[in-house]
Order: sequence, then C-alpha cells, then structure tokens
Amino acid sequence: MTIDLRYSAEVLALIERTRTFTRDVVLPIEDAHGGDITAAGGDELRTRLQQAAKDAGVFAPHAPVEFGGHGLNMSDRAPVFEEAGYSLFGPTALNIAAPDEGNVHMLAHIANPEQKQQYLAPLARGDVRSAFAMTEPAPGAGSDPSALTTRAMRADGGWRINGHKWFITGADGAGFFIIMARTAGEPGDRGGATMFLAPADAPGLRVGRHIDTLDRAMIGGHCEVFFEDLLVPESAVLGEVDRGFEYAQVRLGPARMTHVMRWLGAARRGHDVAVARVAEREGFGSRLGDLGMVQKMVADNEIDIAATRALLVRACWELDCGEPASNATAIAKTFAAEAIFRIVDRSIQMCGGMGVSADLPLARLSREVRPFRVYDGPSEVHRWAIAKRVVGAAKRALAEQR
Amino acid sequence: MTIDLRYSAEVLALIERTRTFTRDVVLPIEDAHGGDITAAGGDELRTRLQQAAKDAGVFAPHAPVEFGGHGLNMSDRAPVFEEAGYSLFGPTALNIAAPDEGNVHMLAHIANPEQKQQYLAPLARGDVRSAFAMTEPAPGAGSDPSALTTRAMRADGGWRINGHKWFITGADGAGFFIIMARTAGEPGDRGGATMFLAPADAPGLRVGRHIDTLDRAMIGGHCEVFFEDLLVPESAVLGEVDRGFEYAQVRLGPARMTHVMRWLGAARRGHDVAVARVAEREGFGSRLGDLGMVQKMVADNEIDIAATRALLVRACWELDCGEPASNATAIAKTFAAEAIFRIVDRSIQMCGGMGVSADLPLARLSREVRPFRVYDGPSEVHRWAIAKRVVGAAKRALAEQR
Amino acid sequence: MTIDLRYSAEVLALIERTRTFTRDVVLPIEDAHGGDITAAGGDELRTRLQQAAKDAGVFAPHAPVEFGGHGLNMSDRAPVFEEAGYSLFGPTALNIAAPDEGNVHMLAHIANPEQKQQYLAPLARGDVRSAFAMTEPAPGAGSDPSALTTRAMRADGGWRINGHKWFITGADGAGFFIIMARTAGEPGDRGGATMFLAPADAPGLRVGRHIDTLDRAMIGGHCEVFFEDLLVPESAVLGEVDRGFEYAQVRLGPARMTHVMRWLGAARRGHDVAVARVAEREGFGSRLGDLGMVQKMVADNEIDIAATRALLVRACWELDCGEPASNATAIAKTFAAEAIFRIVDRSIQMCGGMGVSADLPLARLSREVRPFRVYDGPSEVHRWAIAKRVVGAAKRALAEQR
Amino acid sequence: MTIDLRYSAEVLALIERTRTFTRDVVLPIEDAHGGDITAAGGDELRTRLQQAAKDAGVFAPHAPVEFGGHGLNMSDRAPVFEEAGYSLFGPTALNIAAPDEGNVHMLAHIANPEQKQQYLAPLARGDVRSAFAMTEPAPGAGSDPSALTTRAMRADGGWRINGHKWFITGADGAGFFIIMARTAGEPGDRGGATMFLAPADAPGLRVGRHIDTLDRAMIGGHCEVFFEDLLVPESAVLGEVDRGFEYAQVRLGPARMTHVMRWLGAARRGHDVAVARVAEREGFGSRLGDLGMVQKMVADNEIDIAATRALLVRACWELDCGEPASNATAIAKTFAAEAIFRIVDRSIQMCGGMGVSADLPLARLSREVRPFRVYDGPSEVHRWAIAKRVVGAAKRALAEQR
Repeated sequence: MTIDLRYSAEVLALIERTRTFTRDVVLPIEDAHGGDITAAGGDELRTRLQQAAKDAGVFAPHAPVEFGGHGLNMSDRAPVFEEAGYSLFGPTALNIAAPDEGNVHMLAHIANPEQKQQYLAPLARGDVRSAFAMTEPAPGAGSDPSALTTRAMRADGGWRINGHKWFITGADGAGFFIIMARTAGEPGDRGGATMFLAPADAPGLRVGRHIDTLDRAMIGGHCEVFFEDLLVPESAVLGEVDRGFEYAQVRLGPARMTHVMRWLGAARRGHDVAVARVAEREGFGSRLGDLGMVQKMVADNEIDIAATRALLVRACWELDCGEPASNATAIAKTFAAEAIFRIVDRSIQMCGGMGVSADLPLARLSREVRPFRVYDGPSEVHRWAIAKRVVGAAKRALAEQR
Repeated sequence: MTIDLRYSAEVLALIERTRTFTRDVVLPIEDAHGGDITAAGGDELRTRLQQAAKDAGVFAPHAPVEFGGHGLNMSDRAPVFEEAGYSLFGPTALNIAAPDEGNVHMLAHIANPEQKQQYLAPLARGDVRSAFAMTEPAPGAGSDPSALTTRAMRADGGWRINGHKWFITGADGAGFFIIMARTAGEPGDRGGATMFLAPADAPGLRVGRHIDTLDRAMIGGHCEVFFEDLLVPESAVLGEVDRGFEYAQVRLGPARMTHVMRWLGAARRGHDVAVARVAEREGFGSRLGDLGMVQKMVADNEIDIAATRALLVRACWELDCGEPASNATAIAKTFAAEAIFRIVDRSIQMCGGMGVSADLPLARLSREVRPFRVYDGPSEVHRWAIAKRVVGAAKRALAEQR
Repeated sequence: MTIDLRYSAEVLALIERTRTFTRDVVLPIEDAHGGDITAAGGDELRTRLQQAAKDAGVFAPHAPVEFGGHGLNMSDRAPVFEEAGYSLFGPTALNIAAPDEGNVHMLAHIANPEQKQQYLAPLARGDVRSAFAMTEPAPGAGSDPSALTTRAMRADGGWRINGHKWFITGADGAGFFIIMARTAGEPGDRGGATMFLAPADAPGLRVGRHIDTLDRAMIGGHCEVFFEDLLVPESAVLGEVDRGFEYAQVRLGPARMTHVMRWLGAARRGHDVAVARVAEREGFGSRLGDLGMVQKMVADNEIDIAATRALLVRACWELDCGEPASNATAIAKTFAAEAIFRIVDRSIQMCGGMGVSADLPLARLSREVRPFRVYDGPSEVHRWAIAKRVVGAAKRALAEQR
Repeated sequence: MTIDLRYSAEVLALIERTRTFTRDVVLPIEDAHGGDITAAGGDELRTRLQQAAKDAGVFAPHAPVEFGGHGLNMSDRAPVFEEAGYSLFGPTALNIAAPDEGNVHMLAHIANPEQKQQYLAPLARGDVRSAFAMTEPAPGAGSDPSALTTRAMRADGGWRINGHKWFITGADGAGFFIIMARTAGEPGDRGGATMFLAPADAPGLRVGRHIDTLDRAMIGGHCEVFFEDLLVPESAVLGEVDRGFEYAQVRLGPARMTHVMRWLGAARRGHDVAVARVAEREGFGSRLGDLGMVQKMVADNEIDIAATRALLVRACWELDCGEPASNATAIAKTFAAEAIFRIVDRSIQMCGGMGVSADLPLARLSREVRPFRVYDGPSEVHRWAIAKRVVGAAKRALAEQR
C-alpha cells in the first residue's frame, strides 16, 4: 500500500464530461454575455443551463445519490468543480455554486428526514436556491463569528428572531434561508448559536439592498437581510439548539475548499487565454511567449496552479477521512486565494491593453477573484489561526519541559 | 551649496490651496457619484468644476503663464498634482488630466505661434479637450512605437492620412487630435513619423467604440479612432516632418511622471480611508490598527508612498534640468505603477468586505489603478529598456578592455 | 477507489524511527559541532553515524532490498528523507546524502550485474562514497547539459577520457566516479553522451581544489576534477554508449525530489527553532509569538512547508508511476527551493540578532539552503522549461486550428 | 527657488576621488584577501589603508574640519559613503565604518571640549577605535532600548557601573567605550539612561567572546562586554545625566542612514559584478544578459538602487534641516535593508554556481548584508513604529471629530 493519486474511471469520465460541457455549452453563453456577467445571467438562464447539465449527465456532482446527485466525496469534487469553474457560469449550471453547494453539503449532514425532504430535495434538484445568513455588519459576526448578535428568543411553539445580516450571498431570489442566531450567551461567547431554516416568504424576513461589490457573478447577489420578529416553529431548528457554531464548521471547511476548486478553474481559464495570446502575438522581434519575462509569468502561473491543486488534494483527503482539517483547509484557502489572484493578474499583464479590456475575459475575472482573499475569512485571519496553533503548541511544549 | 528639497512659498501655497479645493469641493462630488465615476462625471460637470478651480486659484498649474496657467516646472507639479489626484475628479477639475495635460506640455514645447493660438490657448483654458492618437492595434504601434502603421501621404497642399488607432484616451468629445502617422519608412523603422493636428470634425476622422476597460474615470473614454482619407493642410504639421518619434519623447517622459503624481494621490486617498477605518474599528480584542498584520500593511503603504515620491523628485529634477531622463522616468514609472497598485490592494484588504464594496471608494480605486501597470508602457517593457542600457554599457566596457 | 494519502504501517514506523534517530542521535552531534559543519563532520564521523543508523534500523531507506536497503519508492522516501534532513548530518547518517543517494538510484536502474556488485553494493552499504561528474565550467555543460565538452575517444580495449569538471559534489574521498563524456557529436548536440564508471585511483583522474561555496555540509566538497588521458575498459560503460543524456534524466528527476525532501527537513528545523524562541521570548508587552508580524511569518512558513510537501507528493507519485515527470519535478523543485529559502530567512528574522549568530543553527542553515536555488538547475532554467512546454503546446493548438 | 539635487563642485570632486581610491587602492586588497574578509583585514591593514586615504585626500569625510575631517553634512555623505562602501574595506580605510563613524558624529554634537580632545580627536584621526555599548541580551535592551538593565550607581566622585552587553561592534581592540547605563528608573521606563565614556583598559571593563555572526567584515567583531564594578569619574558623563536615550536618538537616525549608504555601495558592487558577467557569458543561444529573466533581475536591481538612493536623499535632507527625521530614516532603513538584500541575492542568482562560490565576491557580500535587516532595528520594529505614528494620528483625528 502506498500513496495513490488516481481517480476512478467513473470520476475520470465525469471530469471529462464536465470539461466538455463547460467549454462547449456554458462558456459560449458566458462569453456572449460579454462584460455583463451579473448574477451569472439570472435565474432563467440558470434553469436552462441546469437542464442542459442534467442532459449532459453532469448535474449536481456533489449531492447525495438519493437526492439525484453523483455523491462525490471532497477529493473527487476537486477536479470536477475545477472544470465547472472554467466558466463563471459553470458552477451555476451544475448547481454547485455558492452558497447552494455548501448548503446541500450541510443539510445532507445535519438535517432530519423531514427537513431533507422539504429543503434539501428541491435544492439538490435546482428547483430553488438558498442562502446562508451568518455574516453581520460590525460589531456583529464578521471575521470573528463569536461576535454573533442576531437573537432567537423562545416564543409560542417556536422562536422569534431579530437581527441584521449582510453579505448574504444569493439572498435575492432564494427559496429559503439557513439563519445563524444566538440562543444563549452574549456576543463574544464561543457557544450559544443555533441554526434555523426559514422559507423566504416568511413574514419578518426581509431582503434589503444588494451590496455593490467588485465581483458580480453570484446569482442573487450579496445582500443585506433583516429579521424583524421573524417567527419560526420548533421544527425549523437545524440539528440541535446551541450547536450552531459547531455545525458551521461542518460547512466551513468543505465550503472553503469548493470555493478554491471553482476559482482555480476560473484562474486556469484566464491563464489559458493569456497563453494562447502570447503564443500567437509577436513583438520585440519574437513571439511574446518566447520572451523571458513572459515565460516567467507563464511558469509562475503553472507553479501556482500546481501548488493550489496539490494543497487541495491534501485538505480534501483529510476532510474525506472525517477530520475537521481546520489547519489544512486554512492553509489551502489562504494560499489559493492569493495564488488565484496572482494568476489572473499575471494573465492580464501578459495581454497588455487587451488584458484590462472587456475584449478578453481577464478584467472581469480579476474582479471576481479579488474578493476571495476577503470572503470565507480574510487571509490575515487564517494566518492568525494557523500561527496560533503552532505557537500554542510550542508554548505547551516549553511548559512541559519546565 | 547642497541638496535642497524645499518648495518655494508660492508653490507651498498652491499645494495647500489645491489640497483644500480637492477635499472640500471635488471629493464630495466624486463620492456623491458613488460607484458611477464614468468619465469623471462628464463634460458638464467638468466645466463646472473647472470654473470652481479657477475661482479657487488652482486651475492649470502646469500651463504656461501666458496661457493662463501657473507655469510650474515638473518638480513643483509633483506635490500639486498629487493633491489633485486625491480625488478621481480632481485632475479634470484642474485641467491636468491625461491626455490634455501632456498635450499642453507638448504643444508649449513644439507648436508654432499660430498653432498655439488655435490649439493650445483653448486647451489650456479648458474650452476644449484633446486626444493624442498614437497607439494602434496589433501589429501596429503598441508597446513598440516603431511598429507605427498609420500613413500620411502627400496630397494637394497637405497630407492624406489613413490608419486605425485604439486606446485613444479622451477621444470622444475631444475638440482636436494630435495624430502620429508615418511619413517615411516602413513599420519597424525607428524614424519616419510625423505629428499632425486635426480638428475633431474634420471629414475622414471618425471616433469608434469606447473600449470597455477596468478603469472608467477618464473623460472621453479610451476609444478606437479611424482615419479614412483624412485630409490636413501643411499647417497641420506639428514641428517638423519626420521628427514625430523624437517629439513623442518630449511628451512621454513628463507624461509618465504626471500620471504617477495623480495616481499617487489616488493611492494615498485609499490608504487614508483604510487607516481611518482600522483606527476606529475593533476586532479580535483590539483596534484593528493595533494588530501586527494590519500594522505591516499600513507601514508598507507608507514605505511605498515615500519611495514613489522620492523617485518622482529625482526624475522630475532631471527633466527640469533639460535631460531626457529616460532611465529615471522608466524607473519611477515602473516602481510607482506597482507600488500604487499594492497600496490600493492593501487598503482593500485592511477593510475586508467593506473594502471590496462600493460603500468605500477602494474597489473603484483598484479598478482605476490596475491598468497603469500596462498604460504608458507595461512594466515589462520598461524593465527591458532599463536592463538593455545597463547590460549594453557593460558589454561596451568589456569590449574596451579587450 | 479514490485518492489515498496514507502511508503503510511499515513506512509509518520507519518515519518514526528516523525521526527519533535524527533528533536523539544525530542532531546533538551536529549541534556539538557548532558553526563547523564542514563536510558533515568528515568520513570518520560518517562511518560512526552510519553504524548507529544501521543499529537503529534506519539505514539506506532508498537502496534496493537485495543490497541491504528498505527499498522505498519515491512517495515513501519523502517523509523519511524529510525526517533525516532535520539534521544537516542526518542524510549522511542514513547514506542518503547527495550524490550517493542519486547514484544508488541510477545504478540500481542501469548498471549490469557485475557493475552492481562492484559499485552499487559497497555504495549501498556505505563502504565507499561516490561522485557524479557531469558539470563543467563555461563554456561546457552547466545549466545546459548539451554543451558537454569532456570527450571519451575509443582506445585499445576501451576509452580514453579527457576533460575538466567542476562543482563535483563529494569528489574528495569518493571511491569511484560516474563520468559523463561525449562519445559522439559536438558541444551543443542533444545526444552523444556516455556514462563511464571509474575508480578514484585510476591514473589520469585527478581531484582538484574544493570550490569554496556558501554551503559547507556536503561531505567531499564541491570539487574540480580533471581527466587527463584517463583510460577505462569497455566494461566501464554504464548502460549503453551514446545514451548518457537519457540516463541522466533517470537520475535527475528523482535526485531533484530527494534534494527537496532533505532541505525541507532542514527548513523545518529552522522553523521549529524560531517558533520555540518566539513562543518563549517576550518583548513589546507580549510574547513575540503573539505579535501579528511574527504570526505572519510563522503562518507563511507553515504554508510554504505544506505546499512544498504537497507538490512533492504529486511529483513522487508520477515518478512512481514510471513517468518522467519532468514538469512536476521542475515545478516542485522550483517552488521548494524558493520556499525553503524563505522559511529559513523568516526564521532568522524571527530570532533577530540571535538569528544571524552561531548561537542558533539558523545562520548556518541559511548558507546551506541558498545554493539550492542554483544547484540542480537554477530556478530560471526550470521556469524556462516549464513555460516552453506550455507555450509550445499553445502554439501547436493554434497551428491545428488554422 | 525650486528643488535642487546637485552636489557642489567640491563634493563632486570628493566623490570622484573616493571612487578612484576605493576601486584602485582598496578593492584589490579586499579581493586579494579572497574569502577571508574577517575584521576588514585587521588593525594593521586599517592603519595602512587609512594612511593611504589621507594621502589621497579622502580620509574622514564626516569628521568636523577642526578635527581633520571634511565636515560633510548628511546629504553630502551619501554619495561619498556609497563609493567607499563599494569595497567592504573601504569604510575602514576612510574611518567611516560603524561604530566609529556614528561615535564621531555623536561626540561632535554632545561631548564637552575636554572630552573632544581626549576622545574625539584621536578617533577622528584614526589613532584609536571605539565602541558603543548599548545592546544587551534578553531581557535587557534589545529592539526595545527602554529595557536597559545595565546600572550606574553613584560612587565616590563618580559612578560604579555593572552590566552585561552584547553585539558590541568593534569592542575587541577599541580604545574606548561609550556606555549606556541606567541612572534612574527601572527597566521598561522610557527615561533614566546616561552615557559614560571609559577607556578600554579601565579595570572592571572586560571584553568577552566574539559572537560568531553571518557577517564578518566588522573590525573588532560583535562582542560580549561585561562591566563588573567599573568605576568612572564624574567627568566621564557624556552630556547630562539621565539624557542618554535622547542622545542615542542623535546618533541613531544618522547612523542608520550611513549604514544604508555603505551597504548600498556594497550592493552596487555585487550588481556590477553580476552585470559584467551576464554581459559576457553566453548560454541558451544568447548572451545571458539579453535573456528576459536576467533582464528582469538587472532592472529590479536598478530600481532598488534608485529607490534606496532617493529615500536616502529625503531622509538626509531632513536630518540636515535639524529634524529628528524618525519616520524618514525608519522608512529609508527598512526599505534599504530589504532592497540591498534583494540586490545581492539577485546578483548571486544571475551568476549561478559562481555566484555561491568564493570565486566571486557575491557570496561574501550576501553574508555581510543579511544581518542589516536585523541590526539597527529589525524591519518589523521599524514597521511597527511607522504604523503606530500613522494609526495614532488617525485615532486622534477621529477623536477630534467626535
């Protein structure tokens, strides 16, 4: 027995189908939208693309088999999601865009049978979209989730929720929300959160403005969401009361990794566009792609792609082994978010004036990937967590020696 | 006698007036436009802002005194332009935005008295805008100007010009064009170019589409321009026939530096916004601005600002001494374009989710400054030129030793 | 079937034994040498350490089982070599230092039975050391092996070799040499090389000066070697005539990776020393390890370690699959050489004045790892090769589309 | 009046003489020492070189005219010191090596007439060397000077000093010491330090071991120094009692800058060596210096050199204006220490195997410049100070707005 990095024949076939589908079906539609990639083209296009994905046998690679998906584990998702991410519209087509993909993952792990029928089943089929309402404006839950201020108080036969969320991806048009609210303790406490499920049309749940961000491809936007005496029944509790932070971790690690997979695909597309151009275009008495400074950018892109993939393999394997993999996913996410940004940035640079124009997809890619160094935990917060573990272990070792 | 970095009392007063005007008058208008900074608000706003600048005594710091300007040399322009650049609308307000500012500079050096009256005078007053039509799509004049393909052929009493330009900043709405066309030799030859002046409404001069670029603040856009049997009289020749490349150098070095000045102001605004935020916002048990990783970003921004300014001082002084300063301006431009990008990027990172949203000006600043690493010569072309000089000198030294 | 990153129980046990042996037995001896790590303590210490390694059951993890080794494949070598590399003397103790380790690998693949008995057997046992004589001073075989100038001409019953090599690691005290010499073609030709085996005491083989390099730990130094009418019999030919470049590839890919494994261990030691220090030392009102700028360095080291390991896993797996893995090993080597340098450099910085002194091992580690960005192919040459493949493929794709 | 960067004719002549002297007289001696640059060749060579410098009219450019120097201000020192730094032995030859140069500067500002005669005069002439005894091992005065633990207690007619210093540059062989000791308060207090002068042979002053550091060129080494009931008279007090920290600032800012000047010279030499080599050497079908990746390194070196010089100009001018220039010197030092390291590192990389060997001076230069990122305040401490000022100002501005 030794290390093995092969994919099964089934997975290899799915990778190939996803690759073909994304390039032949999805990418032309994205490019036809030109600069306007807002909300991945909207829900009507989503429905159409998802049907095409179903026809192509590539829909919902992540969803449990009993809910119509391919049931891939994290390791196998990596190459499939990367292929889908090659088009900004690809993840939507396969129903693996954020936040739905992470919500499917979490519901599959935590929801009870009734909740699975009511929420997971239509979500996995693409009949509805969903939102995960955790992040709050300052001084609430941002990089530090324990600052959670949204409150759920016991009410007749259920809970009354009040609070203000923002940067809630996909909120506009979502069919239902998973809401993180404090059921015990005070902001700053590391426990006391509970997750609730609520349909979008529940009274007291209001979607506010779209926050205007650099990235635009997320269907349903990044919105503000208000809970104003939102009443939910006891059956709306996802998992158990007061275990919300714990469940969030179930979602968080894998969600970070699937983000990486998708954005890696996007970065690879940027790289391919740039390489094709420098392989063709001449200047300074040479093909641009034969000039040393361009070769350096090409090679650095290749290195960044390879290292991102390799870190993904490690983190996904740990997750598949049932470990929390907090460190491996933090490392992979931090490296990847910065590497993906560099890849797209170098691709722009290789293409000069064309690179910053909408004549190539690079400028729009650069807008999509920049926020990833902030979303899902800013690089600084991940670095802080990584260092705390290492330095903490060293402190304990020193204490033992004394 | 020794090195002196002081500004005269007059210049110090102009810096201060510009600072006050930009922050009190211009910045509120920019911010009121929110995310929509397209074309610096358009020509109507331009006219209004320029009148306000005249009233404030800060208009046209660069223009010759006889044309209503303050007649500043390059060294003195640096701090004034930086203050104006603090708002994306500031340079337009002071009539020192690209390409007009560089065109004023060049016309002041090269135009004959009639041309000065006809073109420079109204341009310096802000009555019209202008465009500099040099860059061509591949395989024409891009990073390598000698590839110039636009042709001017002798015709009855003048010249007939045919060619295709793009990335012509300010073309839409410009009152006149300075056109670089080949009057001798073939594409690839290092000589044989001539500059022509033409009013925008000349038959045969057509402004095409706006190229949709990451940056949006340039009034008049970056356009395609077509010359289709454009006839110009002999008096349209700017300077002498076949000396166009030489004149372009007169414009190029200073124009690079004024770009740096303006963008440095923009970067400094981004930095100030981020510093104000981390000085206020708390998290992780501390003011964000007291956390080491944030302090590192703040300090690196300060270092980048200081180094950019210091390199500007050097390059401007060489230009003021009448030197071509090709090396000093290439070094300053290359360093500055990358430093300015880093400053804005770190400022975004310091502000997290807010940083990538339109709730702060950082995301829009990041879009404006990214192309500067490509415009005015990509960093790679400048590095190539810098290295060629040094290695070439070493080769000659080796040859002499033999 | 899916991706699996587990090591077998046997390998895990060997990793653990190697870890214990290196830290308990080897490291104290290295540290007792203090600043003087020249030649890993010399051959006498080598013999002693290798006996200790045999007693500990960790000797020769890479050598074929029939020659007394553990017969590990590349994937399994990675963690074992990394543990051995934790001390600069560890690879010597396990008989896996360069160039012997790579020579064992190559002889196991290419040598005939007689050659294996005569050369591989004593080498695998640690009875002798060896050298691989390929690199030549300019204008000979350096970064570009095809420039090979050393000549082997047919002579009575064998070959007469003349040439000048340098940077021949381990040459001083080596029991035998593997010599790369041109048997056909001219310098610049991509074929025509042959490998020869020669005992160190063969007349006409002379070891010159030790080249004084930043790194000092390599036993036998980096030497100049001269072949002056060195006569070798026909049986000295390793493999077949004129296939030397091909065989060099057999050695090169794996040798790059084992270098990475060992130096990664050294870098990790540097990191551990620094982390232990910042976990203990106080300053600026805090443990140094709790300061953000230090945390950033700690986290960046962790990321670099993880990415290096992850790229190794990939490249080793490809090699174990029998692929040449030129791209994967070039990527892993380039990234690793730079990452390892950064790790040690940051570790120094974390320790301040102590970091640059011999009171800690960091300064000496920094000297050992710097040349790795040059040895085994400078980063620039690897990047050039990586880019050439990618751009070449894009050119072919473009040609096909036409 | 406007910015002026010209040097006077006198200074230009001194720059030129220093350049000629360093290259024609000093550099050949350094290179003849080969790898062994320990202590800049020792005191005997120092005496010989200093006589040569006097003969060449380049000795003591910094010392007051009345003490035989050229009396240059900081701005004028920059180019002269850079030329001297071109050889590692140059600063010693001109008597401007650390710590003597900084001590001359401080004594000229603070010492009384008797102290000037007794200590400054022979130091300025090169008759003796000196040491500045401030840094202490943890938990004493390191990066944070206020941690000062060495004590001076009033005794009969003077002071009794006890303490332990380390990293005291030039201590071995110094004629006298300037000692920083606490005369009031407790470690951690920001005041209460006094400077004392003591001849090296005073009983109770003992020079301990040389700390073995990466850098080796400092004459007199970096030593431990012990004060064991060292008795000094009242006249030994330098300046006034309890103002030691304040005086240290007088020394610190300029000393940082002169370090930068000298190391910049050394970096430039490394760059010149590398450029000469890539201008000559061929490979990959081209002069190495015409390959893009090499051109990038050449250009980045040029940019780093130019930016370092430009930041020096700024900081020196502020110092010459009588300002403390804490921010400008911190910025210049931090940027320069990192830039100088990069320059030498790239120079090594350009030269490949030769670069890491003693056949070129690059490897030894790399050892000399690495510690500069730690000495005179680690980069992290400077960044912390830079950020604290900026964030502190922002906090105050916010407080005022409320």
